[in-house]
Amino acid sequence: MGRRALVLFAHGARSASWAEPFERLREMAAARAPELDVSLAFLELMSPRLQDQVASLAAQGVDEVTVVPVFLGQGGHVLRDLPLILDEMRLAHPGMKIHSVGAVGEDPTVLQAMSDYCIKAVTNGS
Amino acid sequence: MGRRALVLFAHGARSASWAEPFERLREMAAARAPELDVSLAFLELMSPRLQDQVASLAAQGVDEVTVVPVFLGQGGHVLRDLPLILDEMRLAHPGMKIHSVGAVGEDPTVLQAMSDYCIKAVTNGS
Repeated sequence: MGRRALVLFAHGARSASWAEPFERLREMAAARAPELDVSLAFLELMSPRLQDQVASLAAQGVDEVTVVPVFLGQGGHVLRDLPLILDEMRLAHPGMKIHSVGAVGEDPTVLQAMSDYCIKAVTNGS
Repeated sequence: MGRRALVLFAHGARSASWAEPFERLREMAAARAPELDVSLAFLELMSPRLQDQVASLAAQGVDEVTVVPVFLGQGGHVLRDLPLILDEMRLAHPGMKIHSVGAVGEDPTVLQAMSDYCIKAVTNGS
């Protein structure tokens, strides 16, 4: 069986502090699945870009990658940019299986946790 | 006791589909707390802007508002733009209590739910 990797794909931003919750998410996922190579990659403004991270994983002998878009909204980045990057990566790495799933903001359990947080915010703010 | 409102503050985007998960989140929070006025508001590109939504709530007699930033990353929008908007709104509506809390991406339970989703994505993608 080949080596598998999980790539958490986020937007990126100018300020370094922006990535902190994504780094915590990466650590949590890595702790949950120690057999898996878990990394962050970005669309823009931060490195590594998704294409570069997947090329690096391919060079390390990883032959199956799952890309999870860590985005809340379903805009152009998830609906248009990501599919183009996936096509480009599949052409560049024909021996690699590259999966992707819906954005985290689509997941009912994530939405439920966010909803709980919002309700608690009102109670705590009183 | 005065009327209270919860405002879910999101970035906004060009494509209308972007807001769908935020609208679902709004519906979930409203269902959890039917006594509360729950609305969405945006930083840019979508309406209403946060300032306009809070002005509209003030005009409706709401006297206490909790603003929850529905952002994952901790960048300039949450760390710099939002505090300025909060100051501006407190000056504009001195009779209104305006609370805010940390971004949803800071919440351990939200991060846990996202981590579970990422791990499941690898299993489902096999």
